Amino acid sequence: MTEAMEQLRSLPFEDLGFACVDHHRQIRTGMPEVIYCPGKTTEQIVEIFGSLAAKGNNVLATRAQEHVFEALASTKRFAGVRYEKAARAIVLEQKKLGPSKTAIPIVTAGTADLPVAEEAKVTAEIMGQQTDLICDVGVAGLHRLLGHTKKLQKANVIIVVAGMEGALASVVGGLVSCPVMAAPPSVGTGATFGGGAALLTMLNSCAAGVVVANIDNGFSAGVTATLINRKIDGGDSHDGKN
Amino acid sequence: MTEAMEQLRSLPFEDLGFACVDHHRQIRTGMPEVIYCPGKTTEQIVEIFGSLAAKGNNVLATRAQEHVFEALASTKRFAGVRYEKAARAIVLEQKKLGPSKTAIPIVTAGTADLPVAEEAKVTAEIMGQQTDLICDVGVAGLHRLLGHTKKLQKANVIIVVAGMEGALASVVGGLVSCPVMAAPPSVGTGATFGGGAALLTMLNSCAAGVVVANIDNGFSAGVTATLINRKIDGGDSHDGKN
Amino acid sequence: MTEAMEQLRSLPFEDLGFACVDHHRQIRTGMPEVIYCPGKTTEQIVEIFGSLAAKGNNVLATRAQEHVFEALASTKRFAGVRYEKAARAIVLEQKKLGPSKTAIPIVTAGTADLPVAEEAKVTAEIMGQQTDLICDVGVAGLHRLLGHTKKLQKANVIIVVAGMEGALASVVGGLVSCPVMAAPPSVGTGATFGGGAALLTMLNSCAAGVVVANIDNGFSAGVTATLINRKIDGGDSHDGKN
Amino acid sequence: MTEAMEQLRSLPFEDLGFACVDHHRQIRTGMPEVIYCPGKTTEQIVEIFGSLAAKGNNVLATRAQEHVFEALASTKRFAGVRYEKAARAIVLEQKKLGPSKTAIPIVTAGTADLPVAEEAKVTAEIMGQQTDLICDVGVAGLHRLLGHTKKLQKANVIIVVAGMEGALASVVGGLVSCPVMAAPPSVGTGATFGGGAALLTMLNSCAAGVVVANIDNGFSAGVTATLINRKIDGGDSHDGKN
Amino acid sequence: MTEAMEQLRSLPFEDLGFACVDHHRQIRTGMPEVIYCPGKTTEQIVEIFGSLAAKGNNVLATRAQEHVFEALASTKRFAGVRYEKAARAIVLEQKKLGPSKTAIPIVTAGTADLPVAEEAKVTAEIMGQQTDLICDVGVAGLHRLLGHTKKLQKANVIIVVAGMEGALASVVGGLVSCPVMAAPPSVGTGATFGGGAALLTMLNSCAAGVVVANIDNGFSAGVTATLINRKIDGGDSHDGKN
Amino acid sequence: MTEAMEQLRSLPFEDLGFACVDHHRQIRTGMPEVIYCPGKTTEQIVEIFGSLAAKGNNVLATRAQEHVFEALASTKRFAGVRYEKAARAIVLEQKKLGPSKTAIPIVTAGTADLPVAEEAKVTAEIMGQQTDLICDVGVAGLHRLLGHTKKLQKANVIIVVAGMEGALASVVGGLVSCPVMAAPPSVGTGATFGGGAALLTMLNSCAAGVVVANIDNGFSAGVTATLINRKIDGGDSHDGKN
Amino acid sequence: MTEAMEQLRSLPFEDLGFACVDHHRQIRTGMPEVIYCPGKTTEQIVEIFGSLAAKGNNVLATRAQEHVFEALASTKRFAGVRYEKAARAIVLEQKKLGPSKTAIPIVTAGTADLPVAEEAKVTAEIMGQQTDLICDVGVAGLHRLLGHTKKLQKANVIIVVAGMEGALASVVGGLVSCPVMAAPPSVGTGATFGGGAALLTMLNSCAAGVVVANIDNGFSAGVTATLINRKIDGGDSHDGKN
Amino acid sequence: MTEAMEQLRSLPFEDLGFACVDHHRQIRTGMPEVIYCPGKTTEQIVEIFGSLAAKGNNVLATRAQEHVFEALASTKRFAGVRYEKAARAIVLEQKKLGPSKTAIPIVTAGTADLPVAEEAKVTAEIMGQQTDLICDVGVAGLHRLLGHTKKLQKANVIIVVAGMEGALASVVGGLVSCPVMAAPPSVGTGATFGGGAALLTMLNSCAAGVVVANIDNGFSAGVTATLINRKIDGGDSHDGKN
Repeated sequence: MTEAMEQLRSLPFEDLGFACVDHHRQIRTGMPEVIYCPGKTTEQIVEIFGSLAAKGNNVLATRAQEHVFEALASTKRFAGVRYEKAARAIVLEQKKLGPSKTAIPIVTAGTADLPVAEEAKVTAEIMGQQTDLICDVGVAGLHRLLGHTKKLQKANVIIVVAGMEGALASVVGGLVSCPVMAAPPSVGTGATFGGGAALLTMLNSCAAGVVVANIDNGFSAGVTATLINRKIDGGDSHDGKN
Repeated sequence: MTEAMEQLRSLPFEDLGFACVDHHRQIRTGMPEVIYCPGKTTEQIVEIFGSLAAKGNNVLATRAQEHVFEALASTKRFAGVRYEKAARAIVLEQKKLGPSKTAIPIVTAGTADLPVAEEAKVTAEIMGQQTDLICDVGVAGLHRLLGHTKKLQKANVIIVVAGMEGALASVVGGLVSCPVMAAPPSVGTGATFGGGAALLTMLNSCAAGVVVANIDNGFSAGVTATLINRKIDGGDSHDGKN
Repeated sequence: MTEAMEQLRSLPFEDLGFACVDHHRQIRTGMPEVIYCPGKTTEQIVEIFGSLAAKGNNVLATRAQEHVFEALASTKRFAGVRYEKAARAIVLEQKKLGPSKTAIPIVTAGTADLPVAEEAKVTAEIMGQQTDLICDVGVAGLHRLLGHTKKLQKANVIIVVAGMEGALASVVGGLVSCPVMAAPPSVGTGATFGGGAALLTMLNSCAAGVVVANIDNGFSAGVTATLINRKIDGGDSHDGKN
Repeated sequence: MTEAMEQLRSLPFEDLGFACVDHHRQIRTGMPEVIYCPGKTTEQIVEIFGSLAAKGNNVLATRAQEHVFEALASTKRFAGVRYEKAARAIVLEQKKLGPSKTAIPIVTAGTADLPVAEEAKVTAEIMGQQTDLICDVGVAGLHRLLGHTKKLQKANVIIVVAGMEGALASVVGGLVSCPVMAAPPSVGTGATFGGGAALLTMLNSCAAGVVVANIDNGFSAGVTATLINRKIDGGDSHDGKN
Repeated sequence: MTEAMEQLRSLPFEDLGFACVDHHRQIRTGMPEVIYCPGKTTEQIVEIFGSLAAKGNNVLATRAQEHVFEALASTKRFAGVRYEKAARAIVLEQKKLGPSKTAIPIVTAGTADLPVAEEAKVTAEIMGQQTDLICDVGVAGLHRLLGHTKKLQKANVIIVVAGMEGALASVVGGLVSCPVMAAPPSVGTGATFGGGAALLTMLNSCAAGVVVANIDNGFSAGVTATLINRKIDGGDSHDGKN
Repeated sequence: MTEAMEQLRSLPFEDLGFACVDHHRQIRTGMPEVIYCPGKTTEQIVEIFGSLAAKGNNVLATRAQEHVFEALASTKRFAGVRYEKAARAIVLEQKKLGPSKTAIPIVTAGTADLPVAEEAKVTAEIMGQQTDLICDVGVAGLHRLLGHTKKLQKANVIIVVAGMEGALASVVGGLVSCPVMAAPPSVGTGATFGGGAALLTMLNSCAAGVVVANIDNGFSAGVTATLINRKIDGGDSHDGKN
Repeated sequence: MTEAMEQLRSLPFEDLGFACVDHHRQIRTGMPEVIYCPGKTTEQIVEIFGSLAAKGNNVLATRAQEHVFEALASTKRFAGVRYEKAARAIVLEQKKLGPSKTAIPIVTAGTADLPVAEEAKVTAEIMGQQTDLICDVGVAGLHRLLGHTKKLQKANVIIVVAGMEGALASVVGGLVSCPVMAAPPSVGTGATFGGGAALLTMLNSCAAGVVVANIDNGFSAGVTATLINRKIDGGDSHDGKN
Repeated sequence: MTEAMEQLRSLPFEDLGFACVDHHRQIRTGMPEVIYCPGKTTEQIVEIFGSLAAKGNNVLATRAQEHVFEALASTKRFAGVRYEKAARAIVLEQKKLGPSKTAIPIVTAGTADLPVAEEAKVTAEIMGQQTDLICDVGVAGLHRLLGHTKKLQKANVIIVVAGMEGALASVVGGLVSCPVMAAPPSVGTGATFGGGAALLTMLNSCAAGVVVANIDNGFSAGVTATLINRKIDGGDSHDGKN
């Protein structure tokens, strides 16, 4: 083994035994400190949250059930921590970023797409972005969407959340010249295969410029849109240096 | 952007924030005002229901749990609203349409197919159609079906709801000269893949004239059959003009 | 066994050994005599074609390779038989049906959808229908489709052929009040799964009134649209009595 | 390791290096000597065929391409060997078995199902069974099938070969009181998934008494039907003792 | 329509509105009266059960939850009705059939396969068969199975129930000369896909004479094995005439 | 229908019968004129190519077989047209765009990923981007990748093309703070499912900021990366106005 | 049947009726006595546990719910029995094996992978192995993993547990020269397909020396790693002789 | 970026433009230099082969078509290079390793499994291992396998190659106390899903100690078995130091 590998050990992280908290990531990649909650016990989430918060950064816990928030809140260690119910997210904003000059439109096809759209919104906002939620403008009533065309055409990047058949991403993609981040929610019954049908629709989009996040992954759509918007708005506003 | 797109904004809809209610759709497409409930909160359903009912139209809420109906009923704002338990539908009939001259037969292979058949029935009836429910005449006892042959051959369009292996659609399709709307329910255990096996059977039907609605989508079968029956019976009976 | 089953033997068909040609079907169901070619040898196709043609009816052979047509033509037994290359169909029109009063629009999203659209067209036309092929109006350039809105809104039934992500069916469905027969072609590469992605999009369409034919099944879309259009245009124009 | 395992070595087989020919199997299980050709080179097939034929038994090679037969025939070592083209099988009948008292009906839905049906037929016949091929009686023209009802109800066991949607197995199963061996062929295009759709239909059959062989496996259906028919007709007619 | 179809109406069945009870089936196909419970309400099951029992036949309700049995029992209308908990079946034996001369071995790979094996056992026994349950002899400990070889080789037909990788069916099939009915249970975790992995193993069995029932379908395996065993043991012992 | 829809007809496109060439798209969305070749005949491609070239724009034909290029070249109508063999693309560059200030790194895991990477490269370059191809730095030899870390961390956006298990996208995503466009090629054998395995790996990436293009869709990755890079580099350099 | 098969009956096992406990297996294969709990009733588990424990061996019950442990403990028959909550395992260690000279590293990508890793750990330890759990070192923060490189390169065999996209197995495999046992947990949401995505990633690993256990199967990874480590450390330390 | 990352650049590899040849890997991981041919052009393979051979190491090219070997041979640069036709591999053995003390048994279920088994054999042998190929001992004739029991029980590790239903891996796993590397070939027709059925069987094996390589991946099974056997036989015989 080379000397290089020896030295890589010196990068900062904190070993909690069950988790290896990477305090360097925020610096290295410009992303917020995030905990993805499924599969972790409440005790583990609280401990990781504490470790992240102790550095003074903003902390986001996604897919969090309400009782997890209550456990966090009851520790009284995290001033200002709040639960975003629609987004199923816990938010601790210790330093205010932004606001961005340009808002990121988040467009949904229907009301049932809201939880994923809200997760994208919370994620973008804690990273300092302005957002503009345009709700329930699916392709079965095109005039609802077309009324927003100008706003969409001014954006640097757009998030589209559309379950069922997911056709909205293609239609939006055909109207604009900026990249579209498409996120398929696992809504609907029948042959939706838990969001898989919408995922395929978006991957096969005939409109160029449409790329896709995982099923239900509003967080990923929010992060990627932020990274794009931030750089266009005037270079990276985060503090990190690579 | 062209002037045309500017003008498209003027089409009527009502923005509730989380939903964008399209009052123009009933005029434009001749369909009832419908709320698909899964993925919406009870509060959202009640608010959308109110917005739709306020226009004086008939309103249908599909896949509705009973407690949603109770929340609607307890508002006392919707006189005559009722819950169709077998169909899992909430129905508000503010103007009586029909009845159609010809009934739409709705044929099921087994008792477990009833919920989807009932959804198709409620949908067709609120759009002014007469229906004729023929239940439990699956292909393992052909004589039960063949006794209904004459009635089926007089229809303008037939709905077939058949889970498990879904073979009934092909057999009915081979007996008649009208189009067959096949709807596969997600019933049965084993390698049914939540209705997927019946869906494939129906798509691959060797009987021409069979087309398919989504798994469990009695609503779609009911709407499409109504659109066909209404036009054959003597032109479109709905009030809309395109 | 009952007497009824005994008597069912008397319905007319012709047993060729490898095929059991059902001359009664045309009377019973109002469909053309059709041979689905895949899996049959050229010799079998020629023999079945001869049996069907001998009754004086129109005959259609779908998914036929060109050398099959050449084998048929070289027998010199079928005056006027022709090969529709784009549709991969062999057509023998022995009696002229129609024309229907109203044309059936056949709408495609892209050029690669043409073979399936052409199969639907040939099928509808041999059954006496006028058709109106509207080509390459996919959702990435909505203005191309919207220019045809009036024509689409006057139709009794519409066929939509759209591969890749198949979103066109939903958009058309949202513009009109007639039923839409959606047929997904097996075009495209990537995660299209041989037309499966477009099939799922169409099944999950958020626009009511959209029903689906099998992948690549332009024939089924053509037959079903014809059955609907024929009945609306003024009752069944075929000769059969049920 | 026990003494028992030591002694198991003494059972007869012949090691060809690339194949371990089990001459004991015919005695032990009452099946013919069979070579499944796919994945084997022509040289390997010829050598295994020779090893099997040398024992004086009947030999069957399934899924054999014609050039394999030609290679076998050109050795001039196998008197009377023949190629069953429709079944894609090579047959060497060195001792005549049967005929069985009762014939096994082999029912197909369409002409394209013939290759699988012929494989079942050749298999059953080399094992001494009479067969009765009933071709192209799919469910879209029920009267063609119903004309054969008496014959089917007299059988000890029935083989049904039905591709596309595979509904014929259920319909036959509902008419008779004997077991039905269903074999789904990989015919058809669209969402047939190489026979998978028909396989699912047959597995989910609502008619009890229907069991299923693998896709395209006419051999398995033929063997199993023979084992059943042979025992019912008067005990096992093969020479083996277990 | 022909006279034959008219007459088919006269076959006996009883229309309960939501179900069309086919009293002719027991005569026609020699199977017991059976209710498949999933998807039916308790009220529907009780009513169908009553209709079937009134004819004096044996009645079997499969996949029945215990509270359904309690509802049936509390009516006090069905003397001797009992709940077979391991098989999840309700049994009403009004006339004693059998016993068969030869027992049907039911072989399981593991303890978790028992519910499906018990369903097969209850089914075969109500149809008059003797059974012999051989439990937990999976292929990871071959000597447990080999100890039963003689018994297996004397059978007319064998049922094998084996989840996880389902290899037991092939091993048993290689030891015997009678047909093997393989039933894959939906047990196990990991990449078992709800019994699908075992289903594929059984379909692809390299041992000829193995045919397959649907996932978890002990009933189908039991019925088919009974039909085979009954005919071999000395002709059909049921009362019906076809 | 509203006046708005009437006016939408006036947007420019050219109807070739089999194709509806959208000359407005380049203006509206800032993308090059592109022909996706699969499913189109050579004649159709030549005609569409001519229609696009006549406007003086750059033209790109993707997934083009070499004989299509030869047919185009032999018309002598397109000066400077060239075939990019590795990318399987035909390129006609009639106006030189760019070059961009910042290059887009295109990273591949192995040599077999090159065709998709080359398609992305050709696409980005015809849109005026500089690119930097980093080849064969898959995760089994991390030091090959880590040597490029600085270059990657300076990029505005990165394209990662990685077949087989597709793990490279996650590793790159963890090293940088810019968005990563991941494109899974359909390379490899075994359980790769035609690129589906790599697609899933990329969708499930634990590194935030990774979004995904369709299998083999280097074009989509190239377009999206260009849209991002162009805006960051100093606003949109294309001529269009929305 | 041969004499050999007769003698195989003499191998020791204990028939409990519903289970056939193979006391010979521990001798024959060197594995611990193990009960896989899903699908077994608590009563069955207790009885099998008692039968195994009576031989004086170590006993392990995997995927055990806590109430099963409580039922076992309340019998007071099993001194020292304990519940390993994180591993969901019941452990009875009646004879102490090991410790092995070399530890087996068990590496996880994230905290949610812990239950599967703990099952592997408990399994290896009851078989006498030392283990070294390295937690939460997924590929999005490579420096966390690289800090452990030396330790990994000294191992005889490594277990990698990594859900979501499962890329860690490839990265570890590229750093070491010993075999890697990869186990994909069924964690994560979106298109993870219950661990199937990680399973595919691991199967398609571009790093040679990576083999795969079933989804969630920490037990299998633990057993196989132990068999390897034990033989390398100085021959098989278990008591059995084959 | 840290200093560590800077230094990682110094590890040796050779950049050919389209490939980044990692000469360090052989030292680091103890594996042979290997080229996986699919997706690479003949020119690329020859150039990479030359780069690898120039270091004096053994070189292996897997899944190589014969014309690739001919291109290599015709360069006359690689003395002693040979083509292993059955394994589809090109072998250049420049230094003789081994032989190992203990042979690795490679067991196949049928003749069609040979190509994958031969790839495993060639791989193990070029790494210095003795192998013992046991062919065509599938579970339908257990006595053929049991005759090899002693030999299998003496092995340090066993490779099992078994297509179709893949049951052989479980049976072998139940007989021995060493790890089993199972490799599923993509042989067979019907519902084998290109080796997927055998893959699932092996993953779900009820015999502990069975781990799985990718479909058709004899190379991976050969490498992993070698890594295990080499360490047990007396420590690593390769020259590398980690």
